[in-house]
Amino acid sequence: MGAALPDPPAWDVEAWLNTDGETLTLESLRGKVVVLEGFQMLCPACVSHGIPLLQRIARVFGEDVQVVGLHTVFEHHAGMGRASLEAFLHEYRVAFPVGVDRPGPGDVPRTMEAYRMRGTPSLLLFDRAGKLRAHHFGQLDDLALGAEIGALVSEEAPTRVEGG
Amino acid sequence: MGAALPDPPAWDVEAWLNTDGETLTLESLRGKVVVLEGFQMLCPACVSHGIPLLQRIARVFGEDVQVVGLHTVFEHHAGMGRASLEAFLHEYRVAFPVGVDRPGPGDVPRTMEAYRMRGTPSLLLFDRAGKLRAHHFGQLDDLALGAEIGALVSEEAPTRVEGG
Amino acid sequence: MGAALPDPPAWDVEAWLNTDGETLTLESLRGKVVVLEGFQMLCPACVSHGIPLLQRIARVFGEDVQVVGLHTVFEHHAGMGRASLEAFLHEYRVAFPVGVDRPGPGDVPRTMEAYRMRGTPSLLLFDRAGKLRAHHFGQLDDLALGAEIGALVSEEAPTRVEGG
Amino acid sequence: MGAALPDPPAWDVEAWLNTDGETLTLESLRGKVVVLEGFQMLCPACVSHGIPLLQRIARVFGEDVQVVGLHTVFEHHAGMGRASLEAFLHEYRVAFPVGVDRPGPGDVPRTMEAYRMRGTPSLLLFDRAGKLRAHHFGQLDDLALGAEIGALVSEEAPTRVEGG
Repeated sequence: MGAALPDPPAWDVEAWLNTDGETLTLESLRGKVVVLEGFQMLCPACVSHGIPLLQRIARVFGEDVQVVGLHTVFEHHAGMGRASLEAFLHEYRVAFPVGVDRPGPGDVPRTMEAYRMRGTPSLLLFDRAGKLRAHHFGQLDDLALGAEIGALVSEEAPTRVEGG
Repeated sequence: MGAALPDPPAWDVEAWLNTDGETLTLESLRGKVVVLEGFQMLCPACVSHGIPLLQRIARVFGEDVQVVGLHTVFEHHAGMGRASLEAFLHEYRVAFPVGVDRPGPGDVPRTMEAYRMRGTPSLLLFDRAGKLRAHHFGQLDDLALGAEIGALVSEEAPTRVEGG
Repeated sequence: MGAALPDPPAWDVEAWLNTDGETLTLESLRGKVVVLEGFQMLCPACVSHGIPLLQRIARVFGEDVQVVGLHTVFEHHAGMGRASLEAFLHEYRVAFPVGVDRPGPGDVPRTMEAYRMRGTPSLLLFDRAGKLRAHHFGQLDDLALGAEIGALVSEEAPTRVEGG
Repeated sequence: MGAALPDPPAWDVEAWLNTDGETLTLESLRGKVVVLEGFQMLCPACVSHGIPLLQRIARVFGEDVQVVGLHTVFEHHAGMGRASLEAFLHEYRVAFPVGVDRPGPGDVPRTMEAYRMRGTPSLLLFDRAGKLRAHHFGQLDDLALGAEIGALVSEEAPTRVEGG
């Protein structure tokens, strides 16, 4: 089903946290359903809903689903630098991988721009073949999101005939 | 997938509310995913979680899923009679169908007994072919339950070769 | 301060529950701050907010404050009879005294009528002298209500010169 | 009642935000009940409970009570600097005055040290005479705290015989 979709933009990330130095890409996560959330550490809805949602997804779905945070700072840049982000992740017990979206020429960082996210939190669902299957902005309903993820999990993993 | 499962027990219901006089059966709901919850109107966890959960499921999944309440009174029988149940459904704006489980020889009513429910709320998931696919007791996680329902919804409807 | 206020109406109650047979009156509670809530067991806001509020008040204020529930049934009378109320109190672990407001000539019971309550939940505050000091309808803010109760608690108990 | 208490330590603050340049002191707030909360912008309990509590207190009590935040950073200093704090206050719509506790020789800032706060959030209540009347650490019950504040509000303002 995802085969006819174009490949989504690559993630343009300047640093990865919580990955033991590994760089995550859609290629490297092929075979898993991927839930990526664009967030800002000082966005209240991200803190109260977006981050806890990722933590619940990681707990509920286990190995079938890879949760990824993307720190997409598009405002208050001076207040959300690397030291602040690291303190935030420590205090909020965030254990999943978090990428720092690479700054662009304007306020909006590059991956956020490439995916045309409207703000934070934004949640993207990629299927096991690495295709973008859903893009949500704002607070989500757990039942509806669970159904979307559950449907993607139940899809067959792609056969790797192309050598990927 | 569900084909190899045995048929689940029929629902033994003495009255249906919110159905305009119609009797609901697994046969009559064939083709839909069915979420049935055994509840008691004076069970606190049913009131705070079980009933609102059914209302969210009905809102999120629409036509693909049929929500059914089953009033499985196994304690305080005198306090949860028909007039009380009707007042409860009115006050809590319950619009989905509710069956009254038929009293049995002991405290536990007949459908609750047939399905070996351990208490209330108990939630049963039936697939489009009418097979029982999951049985939960107690408070549920929306993400996990959404994934289960979403997976059942994405299954093919059964072909009706047997004339059902 | 309360001395100039008129005496409030007596409570017209047909039965007391959770009192070991004792009849509660404003006279018998003189010296304590009294928080009385008119509620109905099938009123959703009473169940989700009104009853838990009384339980928190009883826990926080201890001996200085007497919490009293008054079952003021003004609709669905057949569904909220004595057996239903007793099952409700048992299931919701209500340990404070509850009076059953005496039915009147119309739908509204007598104490509810005498105090001109607008619906349920309604919360009345009586000072240590038995005077009515506040009357609220609907959901309340804990901080604001805590301040009202705290102010009444800090008032002197009345001297009993009149022999009461 | 507060008269016999010693004067509490002065607030040692390096900068005030949300005060239009004014410096707040216990002296300048004499006549009002003061609720001061030591918080850190990346302390989860402060964000989820401590800050919303101050906002509720400000809304409920109005002119009688002055709410004051004190940013008492004792960990992750590099991540909670001035630019981060200002972004935080903007994003969380914090309108009450916030002082930045002056750094001390060790990790713990000076006012936090002087009041022997055990962590964040810590909540201090000062009466109209500027005396420290309560000191709480951790999450608080709104009813109990409302009662404490309500009792302080109902106390007489001090007469200023000493020329204050």
